[in-house]
Amino acid sequence: MSGCLFCKIIDGGIPAQKLYEDDEMLAFSDINPMAPVHFLVIPKKHVENIFELQAEDAALAGRMILKAREIAKERGCEEKGGRFIINAKTDGGQTVNHLHIHFLGGRALGWPPG
Amino acid sequence: MSGCLFCKIIDGGIPAQKLYEDDEMLAFSDINPMAPVHFLVIPKKHVENIFELQAEDAALAGRMILKAREIAKERGCEEKGGRFIINAKTDGGQTVNHLHIHFLGGRALGWPPG
Repeated sequence: MSGCLFCKIIDGGIPAQKLYEDDEMLAFSDINPMAPVHFLVIPKKHVENIFELQAEDAALAGRMILKAREIAKERGCEEKGGRFIINAKTDGGQTVNHLHIHFLGGRALGWPPG
Repeated sequence: MSGCLFCKIIDGGIPAQKLYEDDEMLAFSDINPMAPVHFLVIPKKHVENIFELQAEDAALAGRMILKAREIAKERGCEEKGGRFIINAKTDGGQTVNHLHIHFLGGRALGWPPG
C-alpha cells in the first residue's frame, strides 16, 4: 500500500536487514532493537492489523509464527527462548499499520510485558 | 499431561473463569491480570512451548490467535486494540509449560514489552 513503511521495505524502496523472505512473508531486524535479538515477521500483503486479518488467513498467521520461531532458533534463542508479540492499534503500541510479529530474545524479558 | 496446571484446568480439576471452549482450545481469564482485560488461549493438547509445536499445527496456532482476537473484540478491545504475547522458556518468562497466548488490553501497553 502506498505510504506504508513496511510495504516499501517489501518493494525494496526502503532498505532493511532481511533475515528471510518467501512469496507470502518477509522477516527483518527491528531498526530500534529492544533486545540482543529483535526481528519482525510481516505478511507481504498489506493487512493493517490483526483485527483486519481474515479468517481464511489463520493458516498464514500460524506459518508466520512458526517462521519467527525458526529464525529465533537460527539466532541462538532456542535454549532460553524469548517473547513473540503482536501489537494492535493504540493500546497495543502499534507504530506501523502493517501487521507484524515481533520476536525479542537474548535477554530475560520482564513482566508485565509493557 | 499429569502435573500440568493448564491440563488440569482443561480437565476441570482446577477451576478457571472460562471465556471460550471448543474441541481444540480453551480461553480463560489470567489469574494474575496485568491489564483490565487479560486472558489466555491454550491448545487442549499438551504442547510445552512454541518451540515444541509441530509444523502441521501452524493452522491451529493461527486459529488460536484469531480466537484471541475475537474474544478481545467481545471484551471491548477492538477500537483501541491491545497486545498478543507468547512467552517461550526462561528468557520469555514462561511460567507454565503448556503453550499459551496472552492478550492484554484495556490500557496503553508500554515499550519495551518487558
